Formats: sequence, structure tokens, C-alpha cells
Amino acid sequence: MNNLFFEELKSLANSVNKCLTSLDLLKISGTTPDEKVIEAQNYALSAGGKRIRPVLCLAFYKMFGGIDDITELACCLELMHTFSLIHDDMPEMDNDDFRRGKPSTHKAFGEDIALLAGDGLAILPFEIISRSALSGKISFETASRLVNLLASSIGNKGMIAGQMLDIYSEEKCVYEAFLINMSRLKTGRLLKASCLFGAILAGADDKMLVAAEVYAENIGLAFQMVDDVLDVTSDIETLGKPIGSDKERHKQTFVDVYGIDGTLNRAKQLTQKAVSVISEYNNHEFLTDLANYLTERKA
Amino acid sequence: MNNLFFEELKSLANSVNKCLTSLDLLKISGTTPDEKVIEAQNYALSAGGKRIRPVLCLAFYKMFGGIDDITELACCLELMHTFSLIHDDMPEMDNDDFRRGKPSTHKAFGEDIALLAGDGLAILPFEIISRSALSGKISFETASRLVNLLASSIGNKGMIAGQMLDIYSEEKCVYEAFLINMSRLKTGRLLKASCLFGAILAGADDKMLVAAEVYAENIGLAFQMVDDVLDVTSDIETLGKPIGSDKERHKQTFVDVYGIDGTLNRAKQLTQKAVSVISEYNNHEFLTDLANYLTERKA
Repeated sequence: MNNLFFEELKSLANSVNKCLTSLDLLKISGTTPDEKVIEAQNYALSAGGKRIRPVLCLAFYKMFGGIDDITELACCLELMHTFSLIHDDMPEMDNDDFRRGKPSTHKAFGEDIALLAGDGLAILPFEIISRSALSGKISFETASRLVNLLASSIGNKGMIAGQMLDIYSEEKCVYEAFLINMSRLKTGRLLKASCLFGAILAGADDKMLVAAEVYAENIGLAFQMVDDVLDVTSDIETLGKPIGSDKERHKQTFVDVYGIDGTLNRAKQLTQKAVSVISEYNNHEFLTDLANYLTERKA
Repeated sequence: MNNLFFEELKSLANSVNKCLTSLDLLKISGTTPDEKVIEAQNYALSAGGKRIRPVLCLAFYKMFGGIDDITELACCLELMHTFSLIHDDMPEMDNDDFRRGKPSTHKAFGEDIALLAGDGLAILPFEIISRSALSGKISFETASRLVNLLASSIGNKGMIAGQMLDIYSEEKCVYEAFLINMSRLKTGRLLKASCLFGAILAGADDKMLVAAEVYAENIGLAFQMVDDVLDVTSDIETLGKPIGSDKERHKQTFVDVYGIDGTLNRAKQLTQKAVSVISEYNNHEFLTDLANYLTERKA
């Protein structure tokens, strides 16, 4: 990875951050008490993070020839991700008091507001996508495809199923196949939706869609494996949250199954698969570097 | 109101119930632990209730000349309503242990599963609407209009804003205008979306859309006023939940502002307005009776 990659990554993340802070649907007049829920959403959104999901969307869009500004649509993926983080951190779920080094949303705003803030962020992407169609920025057909992709990736058979498996797995001895399935659902589905979002918006053909899907599935699984390793090898300053949280909750992870080195080796193999499937496309360099960067990351 | 009205009401509610229990997206194989979240959703959906929202949708659709079977789309409004009930009942919100005479979802399934069950139900309507478009049952344009209507009615400036005002109003002395605004958002927006859903699906023109909107706004406010009265005059058997819950939470209601008789009188006036705005349409009788029924209901 060279400087060009980091510059491009920073530039894409910055355009996402700029769009998130200027989104009219998250603007506050400061005069009515109901806006506290939007304040909580902005708080959660501004906690930083790598903006991987919208970056993946923008990168696939560009690689497949897209030239318009679709940053607002890419932000839908970050809104959805942030919804899941807010609800995941709540006491009835993972009970995490910190997220990216700051008090988590329910700690800063109370559990009632955090619940509603999450709900609102889960709804917002559908308002943004449909509005883009009604204002003529994208076709009505594209809007239906994006809505369907996002809803099915998040819903009962997607991310939410993964979270259910996560709850189920606590204090249980689960096996490799279970962990892989859980990871595919819990983190994988939204990452896959992110890549496909960009591909669909660029008008990708079936072969391109399959490439985006295979890339996403492999980096998604690798991503979770690296997460599991970092939970035992990193420190609170680097990670922005306490380490060892999986062990504390008696959750089996890929580290329990493969060991640290074995997990990292598998993550590298998956990354290689992801990289090879996009290698034939022009301008694949950024997504190639991104896959490697995600596996080598320290936080 | 005559027998014909009650027969039609029962028939519409039955078609909704039948559709809800046969919906493929809520089917369970019984073999994987993630399906517990769908079990919780089915539990919440089967608790009964009047199915007012889908019934309003179906009735407007028919009055404006729709002839296809749109029950599945009408069910989206019940799914959204049930999502809001599950999250509303949770300890961090209203902390209600009972709903329609049964333990509320978090009491029956635990708070973690209830949280996810609500999340899943909030997402499901968008999957159903977009799927209807992708399978050719409705146009892509109609799908975008329905998605936008539903998302904006539920989101930060809709129902969720109403719930925020509800949280804010606890233990505070609030005024008539505040109560009206809160009610318009918290219960009114989804009721309005229900009427407009049916109207849009029937291909309503602008004048018809305005009629549906004015009808919905008036019955929505009347509905909340009657709810407030029932909370002090009904009993737990009839209502299916403890009465006096507003007072217990130190929440101001329309009864505090207008008294019982004054609130009922206002509800009747609003109902008359709703009835008059649809009187010019053929086959308006069912929606006329429905408006009166909602004001005269005892539960």
C-alpha cells in the first residue's frame, strides 16, 4: 500500500463525513425537544470510525464506471451501521459503556433516547433512497433494488439473524460452521450490501455483481476474524473500547477455534480471494489495497 | 352503524390476520436459533388488536376504486405499528408488562430479543414494498412513494418525534398545543400514512389524496382523545392493560386539559369533520361508520 491509497481512503472518508454533517434530515433547529433524538444520532455518527461501508460503496461505484455524486446514498450504509451499534451497545444487548473512546449513546443520552435514535437511523436510509428516486437522481427501479437489498440485508434473515445467533452463542460452545454463519450475517451482510450498493448504482452487469458479492463475502469474514484477534491483542487506547470483551461475555470467537496465528492466516487467505476476483477490472487498485489494509489494521 | 359495517370490519380484519399468519417472511422452520426473533414478532402480531391501520388502508383503496388484492401491503402498516408497540412497552420507555391482556414481548421473550424483534418489524415493510415492485405487482414509482411516505411518517420528524415529545412531557405541565402536536406525530402520522397508502395504491388524484389526509388527521386526533378518556374510564378487562397508566406516569392528557366530557365532545367534532370530507365519494359508508365507531369504542 502506498501513499496514494491512504490519500484516496482519507478523501473518500472525508466526503462521507462532510455529507453526514450536512444532511438536511439530520439538521437541528435547536428549538423543539423532539430534536434531542437527532442530537443523539449526530453524536453517534460523529464518533468517528473508518466509514468502511460507505467507502466500499463509493469504491465499487467508481471501479464500475460511476461518475455521479452518490455520497448521500453511500451514507445510508453508515446510518444503518450506526443504528446497529447504538442498539448493540445497550444494556440488554452487549452492555458496552464505551464506543470509539466516547461514552456510548445510551450512556450519553439515556436508554430511552438511544432506543429511539437507533430506530430513527434504521428508517432514515429508506427515506433517503426513496427521495433520491422521487427527485429524479436515481431511477425508481434502482431505488426498489436498493431498498430491497438493504432491508433484506438488515432484517430477520440478515444482520438481525446474526445478532440473534450472537445472543444465542453466549456461554455456549459453538463450532466453526456456526461462527462462520454468524459472522456472515452479523457483519457480512451489511458489508456485502455496501459493495452491491455501489455496483447497482454504477449499473453493474451480472458478472460485476457476482464479483462485488464474492469480494464482499471474503473481506467480510476476514474483517470479523481480524476483529476477534484485535479483541485479544490490542489495547483500549488503540481500539477505543475495552479489549477482552468477548472472553468476558464467554463468547467463542475465531481465535478459540483457530488460534491467533491461524485466524490471521485464514483472514489473509480470504483477502487473497477477494483481491483475485476483482483483479481483472481496471482501477481495481484501491479496492485491492483496501482489502489488504482491513486485514492488516490495528484497530 | 348497522350489521353490514361490523361484518365488513370483521371481514377486512380477518383478511389482515390471515395474511399476517401466512406471510412467508415471518415463517419459521423451527430449526435455527435465530428464528426466536421471528417467534417474538409473531407473538406480538398475534396479540390481536383492531387492525385499524391496515383496515384504513384497505378501505381507502376500495373507496377510491382499487380492485386488486393489496392485503400484504396493507399489513406493512400493522408491522410498523407492532414495532412501535414492542419498543414502547420496554422498560426504558413506558415499562408496560402487559399488552392486550398478555405479557408484553420483552416479558415473554426477554429485552434483547424484544429489541431485535422491534428492529426487524421496522425493516420488514420496506422489504415487502420493494419486493412487490420487483415482482411486478406495483410500479417502481408507486413503491418509491410508499417507501417515502412510510419512512417519513415513522422517522425523526414523524412518529419518533412524537415519542420523543412523549418522553419529554413526563412530569411536566404541557399545554393544549403541545398535546395536539404530540398526538399528531405519535399516533397521527402512522394513521395518516395508512389512509394515504390505500389512496396511493388506488391511483388517487390530488383531491382524493387531500380528502384521505384530512380524514386521517381528524380521526387520528379523535383516536388519541378517546384513548386518553378510556385510560381513566375503562377497566383492565375491557382495555387489556392497566388503566390510569397516564396518571401514574404523571403524563398530561387531553382529559387534563378538556375534562372527560369536553374531550369526548371534541373527538365527536373531529369525527364529523372527517366524515364530511369523504361524504361526496361513492361507497364512503364504511369509512364514515369506521370514524364513528372509533370515537364510540370502549377499548
